Amino acid sequence: MEELTHYIFYDIEVDRIRNRVSEICKDYGLERIQFSGFSGKLGRNKRQELFLKITHAIEEGSGKVLILPLCEKDTREIKEYVQLVP
Amino acid sequence: MEELTHYIFYDIEVDRIRNRVSEICKDYGLERIQFSGFSGKLGRNKRQELFLKITHAIEEGSGKVLILPLCEKDTREIKEYVQLVP
Repeated sequence: MEELTHYIFYDIEVDRIRNRVSEICKDYGLERIQFSGFSGKLGRNKRQELFLKITHAIEEGSGKVLILPLCEKDTREIKEYVQLVP
Repeated sequence: MEELTHYIFYDIEVDRIRNRVSEICKDYGLERIQFSGFSGKLGRNKRQELFLKITHAIEEGSGKVLILPLCEKDTREIKEYVQLVP
């Protein structure tokens, strides 16, 4: 099954729920790219599973999640800038 | 010129710089979708301009920004869940 690169971003205020969501993302082999953002390859079924698990976690409180699939062509146009000053 | 839907997410600790970046996103007609996330239509030139302005703002301190273009087909596969409990 074709796996596309996905980006997952969430806005969750309660630490416990936010941590739960980051653990779910790690369970799916995704890599943390921002404080509340992960990315990695997912097939369609895994994406749906991941989405349901995250929404289930958020339902306990409040928050938002967005799962974005990017085709090969789109990934070539991504712009990223990181400056980490200690 | 073709305009694609873009998603912009940033991780910026310093309030002044983070607010500057959100103002830049608003100047480009983008809509806030998360605390540190915007989306909207951009052509290739505007995307490049926006990216340079944001990196310039971040250069004053530290932080990350990611600009993701999504083609029409990818946008149809976006998964979003929002639960706002007052």
